[in-house]
Amino acid sequence: MSAFHWRCSATCGHARAGMLKTAHGDVPTPTFMPVGTAGTVKAMTMDSVRSTGAGIVLGNTYHLMLRPGADRVAALGGLHKMMDWPGPILTDSGGFQVMSLGALRKLDQDGVTFQSHIDGSKHRLTPEISTQIQHKLDATITMAFDECPALPATPENLRKSMELSMRWAARSREAFVQRDGYGQFGIVQGGTERDLREYSVRALADIGFEGYAIGGLAVGEGQALMFETLDYTAPLLPPDRARYLMGVGTPDDLLGAVERGVDMFDCVMPTRAGRTARAYTERGTLNLRNARHANDTRPLSPDCDCLACARHSRAYLHHLFRADEILGPMLLTWHNLAYYQRLMRTIRAAIIADDLPETARALRAGWASEDWTPDEMPYPDLS
Amino acid sequence: MSAFHWRCSATCGHARAGMLKTAHGDVPTPTFMPVGTAGTVKAMTMDSVRSTGAGIVLGNTYHLMLRPGADRVAALGGLHKMMDWPGPILTDSGGFQVMSLGALRKLDQDGVTFQSHIDGSKHRLTPEISTQIQHKLDATITMAFDECPALPATPENLRKSMELSMRWAARSREAFVQRDGYGQFGIVQGGTERDLREYSVRALADIGFEGYAIGGLAVGEGQALMFETLDYTAPLLPPDRARYLMGVGTPDDLLGAVERGVDMFDCVMPTRAGRTARAYTERGTLNLRNARHANDTRPLSPDCDCLACARHSRAYLHHLFRADEILGPMLLTWHNLAYYQRLMRTIRAAIIADDLPETARALRAGWASEDWTPDEMPYPDLS
Repeated sequence: MSAFHWRCSATCGHARAGMLKTAHGDVPTPTFMPVGTAGTVKAMTMDSVRSTGAGIVLGNTYHLMLRPGADRVAALGGLHKMMDWPGPILTDSGGFQVMSLGALRKLDQDGVTFQSHIDGSKHRLTPEISTQIQHKLDATITMAFDECPALPATPENLRKSMELSMRWAARSREAFVQRDGYGQFGIVQGGTERDLREYSVRALADIGFEGYAIGGLAVGEGQALMFETLDYTAPLLPPDRARYLMGVGTPDDLLGAVERGVDMFDCVMPTRAGRTARAYTERGTLNLRNARHANDTRPLSPDCDCLACARHSRAYLHHLFRADEILGPMLLTWHNLAYYQRLMRTIRAAIIADDLPETARALRAGWASEDWTPDEMPYPDLS
Repeated sequence: MSAFHWRCSATCGHARAGMLKTAHGDVPTPTFMPVGTAGTVKAMTMDSVRSTGAGIVLGNTYHLMLRPGADRVAALGGLHKMMDWPGPILTDSGGFQVMSLGALRKLDQDGVTFQSHIDGSKHRLTPEISTQIQHKLDATITMAFDECPALPATPENLRKSMELSMRWAARSREAFVQRDGYGQFGIVQGGTERDLREYSVRALADIGFEGYAIGGLAVGEGQALMFETLDYTAPLLPPDRARYLMGVGTPDDLLGAVERGVDMFDCVMPTRAGRTARAYTERGTLNLRNARHANDTRPLSPDCDCLACARHSRAYLHHLFRADEILGPMLLTWHNLAYYQRLMRTIRAAIIADDLPETARALRAGWASEDWTPDEMPYPDLS
């Protein structure tokens, strides 16, 4: 087993195609990681996740430490074995979720004390504890423990928060047990302040991680400001390490971020949307609860090979959601994850073929043509 | 395509092994039909239903006529195509569900007028309408429209109800469009009154159906009375036609009914139990929410090849139910249906091998040994 690393295969503008090499297998990038919060990608079997072409999934430290508990996951053979995913798993540090608890958490310089949203029990996370928990979960990629402030925030508060996160990053690195094929990512903070982002990147690069995440975005600042932040942050990052934009996003967000040099993504959007009747397609989004789908015999996407598109009509999916049948969320989550994976493969192929700008135009034109009718359904040509 | 028929392959006592030949494929009997109420076996893809070995599934006329509507199902290519089940489908007549509506329905000699439980809209079912709807759904096996009285009932009320059902059976037969490989079953009524059951069987045999169902049982009378009713009813039925006991039941119910000459079953038990953390196994039932499973690394059943048993521990299933994850119901429904199908295969093989009594003893001994511990888990030898 060799060391965990990312190798660049091709570039197109700032966009990069590459390969992540890990103890649990290789992952072509750019890649989208389905979110498996509590040790399951909601409404999916792992066989169906695999069938979409996903190469790496994400687990949430906060949820798993509370239930079933890190020691229990370890006793069950680790997260890979417990959830039937032998491939790479990235776990977040718990920082983001804990910060979202509001009144239920108390921050100090050493870490955070918080109450479980499940039973009110008291718990503590520090850089050391978070790193140890991720070790027990057997995370292929461990994330540094950070503080993620809500935006908007004053520059002064952003600076204090970022500096705390950088001290915690150093402690996280110290606590990380290096193993062949395993890696740890530092997380760039600093909100939408350029000087803070620059400081944060330098601080993390000085510590040295196997990869770098950009945190603190997609928290309400809007796509334009997020892209602007990526424009100046991504080029500062070490070019030979993978870059991961946390918690992002829509298909359009992913495309724009890849164009700005990002390699990895995670987001609950495709899975959450799948449970609420919202479908992502080459031609924008559809709400399957809408009455206009009731008699539509077409599949969601003619080019999609997911089970929903291969075997069922939009009318059937509409029926399942109207009847509150579990199969609705099952099929639509599958479809959305299949679409996200197909999108990443399309983008990756375009980078390698050095024609990302053209592919990007075709993708955006497709997403903009939301109002299709049964008679006109020209799909963008991405062959 | 030849005519719909059932052929007996072997008998053991009153128990029969046979083959149901239909336009949509052959089904070895005894068989258990998973319930696909609204055009989906809840929490299952049809691929997973197929993987359990199920040969025929059931659809509910009442639910489907209200949503998505019989004409819409027909426009979508029929129930087989809509739900991705090219195999045989049996639809009930809607009679049982309508009777359960209580104050929302009004019975007359011609049929039943009722209000939808979904939106309160008014609908009507008669023998003719029910038969036509099942035709539109493209049911492989159409059920006669009957009245199913709740037990206990006075003999006089049971007699009146049964006589009405027999008149409706004749009208249902009249309305049925005969097609190669399609069949219609009459339904024996009469509660637990022997003379009424005898009268009902004669009336139906005089009309002539491709198969015969025993209705009006498993409605509160208890297993002993149900078996007693089967003891005198089944032998009266034409020996060359399939026999279907409606809405039954537990594994022990199925075994006892097969021993009394029944060939076909349907029940929501394995699917409903799967959604509420209850597992059926060779060693009785387990409640996966119970804390004793939290650290249990064993599969539910060592001999089961369902996804839950092949890849996951009881501890993981426990975790999924505690965390209200959709994958819990998905995996446990799969397991329960796999168990029911395996049970039917075991029973069928025992009939063919002419050793059903011995197999039945081993099965019952297994179910009775509910309280297993990790150290002692001797499974009944059914090889």
